[in-house]
Amino acid sequence: MVVRDIDELPKNAANYTALTPLWFLERAAQVHPTRASLIHGSRRYTWQQTYHRCRRFASALNNRSIGLGNTVAVIAPNIPALYEAHFGIPMAGAVLNPVNIRLNASTIAFLLGHSSASAVIVDQEFFTLAEEALKIWSDKTKGFKPPLLVVIGDENCDPKQLRYAKGKGAIEYEDFLESGDPGYAWKPPEDEWQSIALGYTSGTTASPKGVVLHHRGAYLMSLSGAVIWGMNEGAVYLWTLPMFHCNGWCYTWTLAALCGTNICLRQVAAKAVYEAIAKYKVTHFCAAPVVLNTIVNAPPEDTILPLPHVVHVNTAGAAPPPSVLAAMSQRGFRVTHTYGLSETYGPSTVCAWKPEWESLPPETQARLNARQGVRYIGLESLEVVNTTTMEPVPADGKTIGEIVMRGNVVMKGYLKNPKANEETFANGWFHSGDLAVKHPDGYIEIKDRSKDIIISGAENISSVEIENVMYTHPAILEASVVARPDEKWGESPCAFVTLKPGVDASNEQRLVEDIIKFCRAKMPAYWVPKSVVFGPLPKTATGKIQKHLLRAKAKEMGPVKISKL
Amino acid sequence: MVVRDIDELPKNAANYTALTPLWFLERAAQVHPTRASLIHGSRRYTWQQTYHRCRRFASALNNRSIGLGNTVAVIAPNIPALYEAHFGIPMAGAVLNPVNIRLNASTIAFLLGHSSASAVIVDQEFFTLAEEALKIWSDKTKGFKPPLLVVIGDENCDPKQLRYAKGKGAIEYEDFLESGDPGYAWKPPEDEWQSIALGYTSGTTASPKGVVLHHRGAYLMSLSGAVIWGMNEGAVYLWTLPMFHCNGWCYTWTLAALCGTNICLRQVAAKAVYEAIAKYKVTHFCAAPVVLNTIVNAPPEDTILPLPHVVHVNTAGAAPPPSVLAAMSQRGFRVTHTYGLSETYGPSTVCAWKPEWESLPPETQARLNARQGVRYIGLESLEVVNTTTMEPVPADGKTIGEIVMRGNVVMKGYLKNPKANEETFANGWFHSGDLAVKHPDGYIEIKDRSKDIIISGAENISSVEIENVMYTHPAILEASVVARPDEKWGESPCAFVTLKPGVDASNEQRLVEDIIKFCRAKMPAYWVPKSVVFGPLPKTATGKIQKHLLRAKAKEMGPVKISKL
Repeated sequence: MVVRDIDELPKNAANYTALTPLWFLERAAQVHPTRASLIHGSRRYTWQQTYHRCRRFASALNNRSIGLGNTVAVIAPNIPALYEAHFGIPMAGAVLNPVNIRLNASTIAFLLGHSSASAVIVDQEFFTLAEEALKIWSDKTKGFKPPLLVVIGDENCDPKQLRYAKGKGAIEYEDFLESGDPGYAWKPPEDEWQSIALGYTSGTTASPKGVVLHHRGAYLMSLSGAVIWGMNEGAVYLWTLPMFHCNGWCYTWTLAALCGTNICLRQVAAKAVYEAIAKYKVTHFCAAPVVLNTIVNAPPEDTILPLPHVVHVNTAGAAPPPSVLAAMSQRGFRVTHTYGLSETYGPSTVCAWKPEWESLPPETQARLNARQGVRYIGLESLEVVNTTTMEPVPADGKTIGEIVMRGNVVMKGYLKNPKANEETFANGWFHSGDLAVKHPDGYIEIKDRSKDIIISGAENISSVEIENVMYTHPAILEASVVARPDEKWGESPCAFVTLKPGVDASNEQRLVEDIIKFCRAKMPAYWVPKSVVFGPLPKTATGKIQKHLLRAKAKEMGPVKISKL
Repeated sequence: MVVRDIDELPKNAANYTALTPLWFLERAAQVHPTRASLIHGSRRYTWQQTYHRCRRFASALNNRSIGLGNTVAVIAPNIPALYEAHFGIPMAGAVLNPVNIRLNASTIAFLLGHSSASAVIVDQEFFTLAEEALKIWSDKTKGFKPPLLVVIGDENCDPKQLRYAKGKGAIEYEDFLESGDPGYAWKPPEDEWQSIALGYTSGTTASPKGVVLHHRGAYLMSLSGAVIWGMNEGAVYLWTLPMFHCNGWCYTWTLAALCGTNICLRQVAAKAVYEAIAKYKVTHFCAAPVVLNTIVNAPPEDTILPLPHVVHVNTAGAAPPPSVLAAMSQRGFRVTHTYGLSETYGPSTVCAWKPEWESLPPETQARLNARQGVRYIGLESLEVVNTTTMEPVPADGKTIGEIVMRGNVVMKGYLKNPKANEETFANGWFHSGDLAVKHPDGYIEIKDRSKDIIISGAENISSVEIENVMYTHPAILEASVVARPDEKWGESPCAFVTLKPGVDASNEQRLVEDIIKFCRAKMPAYWVPKSVVFGPLPKTATGKIQKHLLRAKAKEMGPVKISKL
C-alpha cells in the first residue's frame, strides 16, 4: 500500500482493538443489568449475573491452567451452561468446541482426541456417553492425560445421574463456577484472527472435519445476523436450533449484542415451542425444516393458534419444501429462509423478501421463498460457478454450478487437515459443495449437494426437486430421494418416504402406485422414482436427513433391473 | 501471540478481506436493483443506477489520475451527488472530504490546502464560494496546481449558476460521470485501515482539525448504527442531518447496507420534513436539537399531524432540552438520543430506552432520555474519568469527569497534526473534551464541554443545566449560557436568549426580571444568570450554538461589577 499523508496515521491503543463478540456481553451487563438474559424452566438469570458467571467460568479455567491454545469441549443440549460457554471459554483465551449430543461415543472420542480437549464439560444426561467416549480415547492413546471433567446438573433431570457423575470424580458445574472470580479481568484477544470456536461437521461421509472460527468472524456474523433478520434490541429468542450447531449460527453472541433474552429448551417439541411463544413473548427462533414440519403438523391440542404476536422464524439446513413454508405462513409465522454451512458461521444467503411478493398467491410466495436467495451482509462475495472455468453461470435459472464464497465469515479452515483445506479453498474461493442455479432476479436456488445429484442416463436430476413435488402429496410427511443403481440408466431415483399420522398404509402397493401416479403428473418421466420405500428416515442431530445412509440402503437393494421397466 | 494447532490456520483469499462499506452498495444493487435508492425532487434513482453511477464516478476519477492517497473535496448540501461521492470516491481508492457548506471562503481555502485536494466537486449554488476559496488558496500557494473542478447542476436551482460555472471551465457532474465506465471493476482497499473520509471539525476555537476515518471503522459504524437504532431492511431515511457532518454519522453507508431509500433535502424546514414523512413514508431521520425545536414549534399549517406512522428520530449534537424531547414525543416521534463526535464516526452513546420507563410521566421520561446514555455497540470502551488519575468517577450522578473512549470507531487521528494527536490520544484513550457524570444506572450525562464549564467562586457550574431550566420558560425559544468575567466570583453565568415568535419583547427589563425570577425558583442562587441578553444566536452549519462567539461577546461586555450584586 502506498502510504501518503492521508494514510500515515498509525493504530494506537485508543483507536484499534480486536473485534470480538465478548464485548457484547460486557455491554449487555452494563446497559441492561437486570433484564433476563437466560430462562431455563424455573431458572432465570439477568445479564449482570450472566456476565459474572461467564467471568467465573473463564477464571476457573485459567486457575486450572486452561487458556490460550487450549480447546474445551461442551456436551450439552440448549441449557444455560452451553450459552455461558460461548463467552466463558473464549474469555479465558481458549476455544469452545460444542459437541453434537446425538453423536455416538466413538465419534465423540475421535473429536476429543482430534482437538486435544483440555476439559470436557458435560450435561448430566450425557455423562455416561462422555464417560464412554473418554474411555475409548484413553484406550487408544499412549500416555493419555485425562482432561478436566465437569458435570452440569439440571433439576429437570434425574438426580441419580448427577450423583453418579460426581462419584466418578466430575466437578459439578456450579462448584466449578464458584471456584472462579466474578471480577475476573478478561481481555479481548490480541489478534482478532484468534480462534474462538471449533465445530465438527456432521460428517455425512468420511470422518468429521473440525471447522475453526475466529473472533473477527464471530463478531461480524453476530451483527450481520441481526441486521439481515431485522432483529432488534431486546429480542426474545427461543433456542430450538442447537447451540452446538455452528454456535447457533452465531445467534448466541447476537443475543448479547441485542441485550435480548434467551429461552432455553432441552428438547424441541411443538407443544413446548407454542407454550414458550405464548409465555415469554418469543419474537424469533431458528429451526431446521424438520422442526417446521413438526410445528405445522402438530395436533391442535399442542398448538396455541392464532399466534398472540408475529413470530419470526429463520430456517435453513436444507431447502424447506414450499408446502411447509406455505403452511407456516398460514399459521402466522414469518419465515425467513436462509442457507449456509458450519464453514460459514451459519447462514450465507437469505431469501430476502420483496414487498412486491405480498400480493402473490401463497403457493407462488412459498416457491419464491424456497429459494436460497442472496448473500448475507457479512459475506463479501458469493457466486455460482462452473467449477472447471470458475466463471459464474448465466442467471438463467437453469445452468447448474457450484456455490463458492469469499469473505470474513468464511472459516479459518479445517483443523489439522491440510488436504481438505487445499481442496476447499482452491482458486481463492471457499467451495461449498452445493450445486445451484442463479435465477434472472439474482436469487440462487440449490439443486443439490454435489454428491446428492442423481445422474440418470446423461441427465442430472436434482433429488431436491423430486422431493419438493413429493412433499405436496397428501399422504407424505417426509420424502428423501437418492440415487439407486440402475442397470439401464446407471442411476435412477429412489424415494424413501414417511407417511402422515392417520394414513392407511395397509395396502402398501396401492400407496406406491398412487405416489408414482402423482409424480408422473407433475414431473418429467425420467425424474419419477422407480422405487418407493416406506419407513423412518435416519437424521443427524440437527434434523438433516442422512442421505448417505439412504444411499447405502439403496445400493444394498441392488440395481433396478431392466426387466422391471 | 502463542501459535498452536488451533490458531495456526493462515488467512487466505477466500476467508479474509478488508472491511469496507463499499460492499454494501454492490450488494444493494444485486438484491434490490429496482428499489429506489435516492429521491431528490423529481429525480429518482434505483440501487442499480446508483451502483452504476458510483462506478462511473470512480472510473472518471481514475481516468484523471485521481486515486490512492488523493483527497477529493465535495461542497454540496444533501443532494444525490454527495451521496454518490461516499461510494464513488473511495471506490477510486481516494478519500472523500465533504465540506461544510456554511463555511466562508477563507476557511474552505484552508481546508482545500490542508488536505491538498486533487478535485473539488461543488454544487452549483456554492460555485462562487468555491471559486473564491480556490482563488485564496492559489494566491497563497507557490506553484499552485489547480484541482479538477466539477460542478453539480440541480434543476431546482437557478440555471444561470450552472452556465456561469461551466463558463469558468468547470466540468458538469453528469458529463463527468458520463466519461467514466459503469462497469468499472472497483476493488476493496488492500488494508481496511486505509482512509475513507476526512472531515474537518467545526472549529469552535482554533483552526479546523481534519478528522481521518478508515474503511474498517466506517463499515463497523454503519452496522452498529442500524442495530442500535432498530433500523431494518428497507428503511426510508430523510436527509435532514447534513451528509457533510461526519458522513451523516455513517448512515450514508448504512442505507446501502439496508437497501433502504434516501430522501434528499436541499434545505431543512419543518414543512418539508412533514411533507416528506407523509409522501415517502419516512421511517427515520437524524437531526440536531435545533431542528427538533423547529419541528415542534412549527405553525400548524406547516405540520401533518397526527403522524401517519411512527417516525424514529435520532438526535445528537448537544443535549436536547427535556421540554423539546417531551414535545416531540407528544407529536408521535420516537426520539432516540445519542451523543458523539466527528472523531468517533458520529454517535458514541445512546440513551437506550428501557421498557420500565414507559409508565413514567412524560417529564420524567424526557429527563431520563435527555441523558447521553450508554456506549454504542461498535465502541469497545467508554468511561468517565478523573483526568488526573484516569480512574473512572463513581456512578453517583454527581462527580464530574471527562468522557474518554477506546475502540474501532475512533478516528485514525487528525491529519498532519501530531500535537493534537498526542493530546487527544493521551494515556491510550481518546479524550472527548466533554465533561459528564455517571448515574447509578450506568448512564452518563454530559454536564459541559470542558471549555464551557463556568467556574464561579470555587464552584463548577454546568451551563447545560442552567439552559435546561431556561428552555422550560414559556417565552424562551433558545438559551445559551456562558461564563462572563465577574469581579467578585471570577466568572458568573451570562445567558443569551432568543424568544418564541409572538412574545411581547417591548419591555425588555421586565422580561429579564421575569426570567431571573423563574430561574431563582428552580436552581441554586449561584447558578442564576447575572446577565440576560436577547438576540439571535450564532450557529455552526450543523446547528450547534457557537459558544466561543458568545463567550467573546460576554467578555466584551466587561466584568460584572461588584456593585451590581
